Amino acid sequence: MKTRAAVAFEAKKPLEIVELDLEGPKPGEVLVEIMATGICHTDAYTLDGLDSEGLFPSVLGHEGAGIVREVGAGVTSVKPGDHVIPLYTPECGKCKTCLSGKSNLCTAIRATQGKGLMPDGTTRFSYKGQPIYHYMGCSTFSNFTVLPEIAVAKIRDDAPFQTSCYIGCGVTTGVGAVTNTAKVQPGDNVIVFGLGGIGLNVLQGAKMAGANMIVGVDINPAREEWGKKFGMTHFVNPNDVEGDIVQHLVALTDGGAEYTFDCTGNTTVMRQALEACHRGWGTSIIIGVAEAGKEISTRPFQLVTGRNWRGTAFGGAKGRTDVPKIVDLYMDGTIQIDPMITHVLSLDEINKGFDLMHAGESIRSVVVY
Amino acid sequence: MKTRAAVAFEAKKPLEIVELDLEGPKPGEVLVEIMATGICHTDAYTLDGLDSEGLFPSVLGHEGAGIVREVGAGVTSVKPGDHVIPLYTPECGKCKTCLSGKSNLCTAIRATQGKGLMPDGTTRFSYKGQPIYHYMGCSTFSNFTVLPEIAVAKIRDDAPFQTSCYIGCGVTTGVGAVTNTAKVQPGDNVIVFGLGGIGLNVLQGAKMAGANMIVGVDINPAREEWGKKFGMTHFVNPNDVEGDIVQHLVALTDGGAEYTFDCTGNTTVMRQALEACHRGWGTSIIIGVAEAGKEISTRPFQLVTGRNWRGTAFGGAKGRTDVPKIVDLYMDGTIQIDPMITHVLSLDEINKGFDLMHAGESIRSVVVY
Repeated sequence: MKTRAAVAFEAKKPLEIVELDLEGPKPGEVLVEIMATGICHTDAYTLDGLDSEGLFPSVLGHEGAGIVREVGAGVTSVKPGDHVIPLYTPECGKCKTCLSGKSNLCTAIRATQGKGLMPDGTTRFSYKGQPIYHYMGCSTFSNFTVLPEIAVAKIRDDAPFQTSCYIGCGVTTGVGAVTNTAKVQPGDNVIVFGLGGIGLNVLQGAKMAGANMIVGVDINPAREEWGKKFGMTHFVNPNDVEGDIVQHLVALTDGGAEYTFDCTGNTTVMRQALEACHRGWGTSIIIGVAEAGKEISTRPFQLVTGRNWRGTAFGGAKGRTDVPKIVDLYMDGTIQIDPMITHVLSLDEINKGFDLMHAGESIRSVVVY
Repeated sequence: MKTRAAVAFEAKKPLEIVELDLEGPKPGEVLVEIMATGICHTDAYTLDGLDSEGLFPSVLGHEGAGIVREVGAGVTSVKPGDHVIPLYTPECGKCKTCLSGKSNLCTAIRATQGKGLMPDGTTRFSYKGQPIYHYMGCSTFSNFTVLPEIAVAKIRDDAPFQTSCYIGCGVTTGVGAVTNTAKVQPGDNVIVFGLGGIGLNVLQGAKMAGANMIVGVDINPAREEWGKKFGMTHFVNPNDVEGDIVQHLVALTDGGAEYTFDCTGNTTVMRQALEACHRGWGTSIIIGVAEAGKEISTRPFQLVTGRNWRGTAFGGAKGRTDVPKIVDLYMDGTIQIDPMITHVLSLDEINKGFDLMHAGESIRSVVVY
């Protein structure tokens, strides 16, 4: 079949909207019509050539929502017509990691996914006979895409695609970091570094968890108003702080926060986030993806005196189990998504979405097919 | 009163055995006759001038056991004749940290302890009229010492001083890191870096917890035999490994260990310990004290993919609550101490104990008064 798609033919070039050939689903795979997709920093990170493992030509995009149109042999958990969210972190339920119950980082298809291929080692996309790579196992910048059955979460039919696509990455990553990874308890103090599309979701996750102080930190003063919409109780702009930002935050939170979250990808900020944790028990969680080659560092004394340094991917969420629950939280009004969708674009306008993000002018731009 | 003591008059010089003046206990304090004291790397670290906050002249030593001889006004939890272990990590039961239930790092007397003083801001030791500093709130290199009531753990009377003094630091630090900080579960795989006085206790803690593989790592081949005595199932000498030690250990443990422990104080090893953890859930715990100014570092990807970096002090043990229980574990034979006491010295021979340690010839040297 044919599908319209925005193709990244090479790094550092705009996406090109073309018609691709798409092979139908093989056994264990499903064909999904993508109805909407968010544009995430990770897509830009790859397109800008910063990911040393980035593959081209490829169909980027990993934050989508759509409808199953066809299923391959042996597929039992979804059927044509089901509404789904593609999962860049699948959930096979059978690998060592899934069976551990201690992590969401399913390894069932990791090797091929990292190579831009389906589990059988081939690609479903091609352009004029040339294979085009998949991306993060999703490739939601294509109107139609093929996914492994274990990489789709079935969601309720009444959730709007234009907003629920954001649950495919940003919302789950931020809210899940609070609820799955940190397990913030009522009364805890929380500091969130970076109030972009992830950070705002951490804020609303912390509010949902009943946190006491919810401190937002950003060098962009415009983010203060954004933060307040999602539960932030205190805003700190490091540029307005005299002296050391860590000491300022430790004083503000009476000894440091129970949990801090880095949503910047900046390794210097990651260190500040750790050191702003409370002595004895504070935990810092890295969400942001750092530039290739960058390292985090601190004095071991910070850990020996009881601080914990952790990270999270996809908010620690088990895709097929937890994503439908986050859709429920959205549909019942416990968490908000609509105000974060600042721009709705057509596929033809997708490069504008990247420009808006780079300029810091969007929280989330969504492409609707 | 008078007390014989080994005094550190200045850094990088041998201790001098002299008779000091010792003031009796003030309100809330107790006078303890130290019956035995271990010589720990931390004493050497300070004596060697590596601790930038080290104070001289002082009475070092923090790993003792003794008998209460006199109590100051208001002391209710111990009485003369009670056997006790001095606590460099006290337990007041009233500060924010004690009340949190989440950490053993009681802050009640932290400020004065760090300055080598008793909680009232003065010292009890003097030599020819010159004040001599306390050390880690203990100063067990003196036959008699004065301690805050909250800094002594009452233990059973039948525990031999010569071995139970080791519970004042090394044993509790190692065993507690496993049971209190890591909370190793039956079947977990464990890697211990550095098989000195702490590492061997981590090994026996892991054995007690029912760990599956208990891997010991040391560049000293003589430590293989030592490790086997305390539950080690596999020994790895990095000098005998071709290629990367982390990859070797990850392969050996089928993906990495559930828990790794750094008992070396070497920041390069600390990184290896983190990276030898299992993706998704492995936790690395720093026990060793690093050289001043040294930092740990890694790629944030290590944490984002589910590894946890933590630390522990005094094995996460709440002194007055947990130390008596560790004495019980020793007395009922669940853990061993006797084989680790490789040298028993008199106070006059204390410098020999430091020499043995520096030469790697002792596990623990103990001074018996």
